[in-house]
Amino acid sequence: MDTTARLLITCPDKPGIVAAVATFLYHHGANITSLDQHTTDPEGGMFFMRLEFQTPHLDVSRTLLERAFADAVARQFAMDWRITYAVAPKNIAILVSRHDHALLEILWRWSRGQLPGTVTMVISNHPDLETAVRNFGVPFHHVPVERDNKAQAESRMLELMRGNADVVILARYMQILSGAMIQQYAHRIINIHHSFLPAFVGADPYQQAYDKGVKLVGATAHYVTEELDMGPIIEQDVVRVSHRLQPAHLRELGRDVERNVLARAVKWHLEDRIVVYGNRTVVFN
Amino acid sequence: MDTTARLLITCPDKPGIVAAVATFLYHHGANITSLDQHTTDPEGGMFFMRLEFQTPHLDVSRTLLERAFADAVARQFAMDWRITYAVAPKNIAILVSRHDHALLEILWRWSRGQLPGTVTMVISNHPDLETAVRNFGVPFHHVPVERDNKAQAESRMLELMRGNADVVILARYMQILSGAMIQQYAHRIINIHHSFLPAFVGADPYQQAYDKGVKLVGATAHYVTEELDMGPIIEQDVVRVSHRLQPAHLRELGRDVERNVLARAVKWHLEDRIVVYGNRTVVFN
Amino acid sequence: MDTTARLLITCPDKPGIVAAVATFLYHHGANITSLDQHTTDPEGGMFFMRLEFQTPHLDVSRTLLERAFADAVARQFAMDWRITYAVAPKNIAILVSRHDHALLEILWRWSRGQLPGTVTMVISNHPDLETAVRNFGVPFHHVPVERDNKAQAESRMLELMRGNADVVILARYMQILSGAMIQQYAHRIINIHHSFLPAFVGADPYQQAYDKGVKLVGATAHYVTEELDMGPIIEQDVVRVSHRLQPAHLRELGRDVERNVLARAVKWHLEDRIVVYGNRTVVFN
Amino acid sequence: MDTTARLLITCPDKPGIVAAVATFLYHHGANITSLDQHTTDPEGGMFFMRLEFQTPHLDVSRTLLERAFADAVARQFAMDWRITYAVAPKNIAILVSRHDHALLEILWRWSRGQLPGTVTMVISNHPDLETAVRNFGVPFHHVPVERDNKAQAESRMLELMRGNADVVILARYMQILSGAMIQQYAHRIINIHHSFLPAFVGADPYQQAYDKGVKLVGATAHYVTEELDMGPIIEQDVVRVSHRLQPAHLRELGRDVERNVLARAVKWHLEDRIVVYGNRTVVFN
Repeated sequence: MDTTARLLITCPDKPGIVAAVATFLYHHGANITSLDQHTTDPEGGMFFMRLEFQTPHLDVSRTLLERAFADAVARQFAMDWRITYAVAPKNIAILVSRHDHALLEILWRWSRGQLPGTVTMVISNHPDLETAVRNFGVPFHHVPVERDNKAQAESRMLELMRGNADVVILARYMQILSGAMIQQYAHRIINIHHSFLPAFVGADPYQQAYDKGVKLVGATAHYVTEELDMGPIIEQDVVRVSHRLQPAHLRELGRDVERNVLARAVKWHLEDRIVVYGNRTVVFN
Repeated sequence: MDTTARLLITCPDKPGIVAAVATFLYHHGANITSLDQHTTDPEGGMFFMRLEFQTPHLDVSRTLLERAFADAVARQFAMDWRITYAVAPKNIAILVSRHDHALLEILWRWSRGQLPGTVTMVISNHPDLETAVRNFGVPFHHVPVERDNKAQAESRMLELMRGNADVVILARYMQILSGAMIQQYAHRIINIHHSFLPAFVGADPYQQAYDKGVKLVGATAHYVTEELDMGPIIEQDVVRVSHRLQPAHLRELGRDVERNVLARAVKWHLEDRIVVYGNRTVVFN
Repeated sequence: MDTTARLLITCPDKPGIVAAVATFLYHHGANITSLDQHTTDPEGGMFFMRLEFQTPHLDVSRTLLERAFADAVARQFAMDWRITYAVAPKNIAILVSRHDHALLEILWRWSRGQLPGTVTMVISNHPDLETAVRNFGVPFHHVPVERDNKAQAESRMLELMRGNADVVILARYMQILSGAMIQQYAHRIINIHHSFLPAFVGADPYQQAYDKGVKLVGATAHYVTEELDMGPIIEQDVVRVSHRLQPAHLRELGRDVERNVLARAVKWHLEDRIVVYGNRTVVFN
Repeated sequence: MDTTARLLITCPDKPGIVAAVATFLYHHGANITSLDQHTTDPEGGMFFMRLEFQTPHLDVSRTLLERAFADAVARQFAMDWRITYAVAPKNIAILVSRHDHALLEILWRWSRGQLPGTVTMVISNHPDLETAVRNFGVPFHHVPVERDNKAQAESRMLELMRGNADVVILARYMQILSGAMIQQYAHRIINIHHSFLPAFVGADPYQQAYDKGVKLVGATAHYVTEELDMGPIIEQDVVRVSHRLQPAHLRELGRDVERNVLARAVKWHLEDRIVVYGNRTVVFN
């Protein structure tokens, strides 16, 4: 059994935070095995911290530990915080349209145990990928989206996800989500965009990249916000291209980047390594 | 003595071009040592070719060779073409403001023989870098640019460059050139922009990159056209960054990318490896 | 129908080769759409060339074209050459043990049409991957290899491959092949080794890399020769690692590199882009 | 004035270390601005930690702080530890032979303030680089090394460095140092080797890389130990190469990698980011 717990903290920076947190954990029998912190500015900036600690020798229950932390530490430093436990992995819903590369990469890594979490469902507006998904033992739901049933389709998706999805992965899902749905899963919907954002927002970025004649094409994993392709960036990468490549070749090369970038972003989210602050992310990796 | 010559060809694609060119050169005693070609589309596309050949056994003078090529080959295929010779290297003028990193990288590589060409002058709108330039044995001209003397300053620069500059390198030159000057050196002015274009056009791209929270910062070498930062891209590269880095750190890391990207672009230009077609470049490297 | 043909040539360098080849093809109605060449030394070196040409307007059959080329061009330049046709793709046999990552990557890319060729079989010394292989519609053969049946097992494999395998991919196949088998498929067996060769030859290279404390781990695709892990290198790549990673993490990161490196090498082999010369490869990509 | 101090700790891992250290610092008015830690194994492994803290509000002198830390914290956890202060930067001696690229890169970065420390001298066994060094305002010492005066030459070097060198950079210094000198500067001599170690130990690694036909060439910065090219690796990087490049081209491309790899390693050493443990390094960067 994995006895790891993770504590994430965001608060105004001031002296004594590390001492207070580490001393609290030590006194309750928690052994810190990893600690990472970040300060935007030691004078009046924001402070971010991620700790991993081991729980076998805790002197209280998890519930009491959290209540005590809130009272003894969090309040005095005005902390925004949460503790998560490896024994309670996140539920994952994947939304996809027709492209299978990002989906299969996530499912394959997950099936090998490389992505902690439980893939509870794949939802698609097309039926094409049902067999591929079922081969992994994962439920597949076909929820068609037409011009005049968008609201009903989204209701159906939310119903499927209710209680079964802590994070939503858009593995090349080509429909735009409503603001209501985005707010319900704020900073919990991860999209893979097939360009190096903020270059080439919107449709067919590989064609845009070809037309512009760039020498690298990239991919960007980001949290979804209401402004299209503009949410906090989690991870990016690029691959070198040349004048020899047509848009179809850029798409082929780009797919490999998309797969890896999305997989890294998802892994970090599942391991609680990401803190969003404003429109930027702190990634403790 | 370097006996290499380079032939660059752009023409509509049709069968027989390679045979005609290679046969012509062979019959005149030119030995092809490198050949690279590119077709946008074998049916009705454009054809680009770069050959290197050795001249010691030419059976005619260079002038006659070129005249014969025009008559015997170029006309029938409607070629846009040129031949350059390693024994007649290009003259290079460098324009710079206050940042020394791109300038010194070019001068250092040039002084080691890594950049074929002759740096004939460095022109700056600031006097700061005079000693550094003179240490390389290169003439330095201080041409101040003020709000009300831009035209005269540019005239002075053009006068200095007349007959002494085949290519102009903007090694972080912070003044905008006039359309007249850009046209006079069309596709012969190389700028280094400190972002991965088309992301972060304009001023202070590292601050823009920081504000956006990107996970890679880059640099772009491109030919200058009248639309700011929008000319044909020659080369790009990126470096990974994290939330820990302030804009000042992005600038520091970015400088290393700028230096390398500009040096590669300049080298390829000096070796006649670049063909501009529309707003894109074919780089035979 | 893909009408592309590919001509690969190796011969002593001397003037006139390009002219002779291009003129020959032009006269027979072949339209050259790609040409790449390499010379180890223009004076007395070896010359390598790869052409792609289109066959719809050939004035003779393929057989006659090849016979004519042998007589009219190849003999006078002492060429080692071959022509292959996109309409006759290569048959591929994949050998694998228990690790599925390299195998699945190849099968997935192949099923999407990214790898020209026909996967005719997967042979494994373990039964574990049978279902995964059959899901792709590919025959799976379990050929156990024990200490005392190595020769019989190899005979069985050769029998399966006879007439059905132009190239053999070792997608993490953990048995050592006999010299006889290697010679029968000289420069047609591609192995993926999980290190940046020549560093970390032999067993458990990720443990070796960990023990040495390297800051990058890599993978190498190479042709198999009788000397273990020493054959001509086709492709390599690396990924950055840190002191935080245990050998198990290096393996996980390394798998991604292995998958991509092997896929690129296989693609280049299938497209006849690789020429072996001595213990090095010329890769026209 | 830079008020940053850095605390580096190595000790057996056990619960309570972070709490003890952070509480100690907090009680003495030190504000922690950065904290990084590493555990080889939470059960019985080694623990490494690097903290940065600000000193303006210390309630005791630096001397008393260190004495108190030794008594109150270090002893109970059997810590190997040190505190360094940004106001007391390290003295740097650079040893070089004839290649100037690594030397100039270090001097240029240092002159811009990118490398905290004081370059107190450059020592060379050749006189060639004297002017280049003096242009940076740095003393240059020519200490010839001949077959029969090695011991005297090293004595002369040690005499020059005594009290003036906290770290020694071998910026392509082609002489082998004696075991005595290496021990005197244990883990304080940084060498740049022009290959991706452990591949291509010894002389002319670019020729070795060419002969082997590798597709990437690299460079390695490491601490010098008595076994040639085998000391703890600090940093490595690679660049892609192809069959087209002769050994001279590999050298040219490799120089750029060497420059960057050495500069990063030196910066990390100067900022006390490196802990050596066995033959591996922990790099807190």
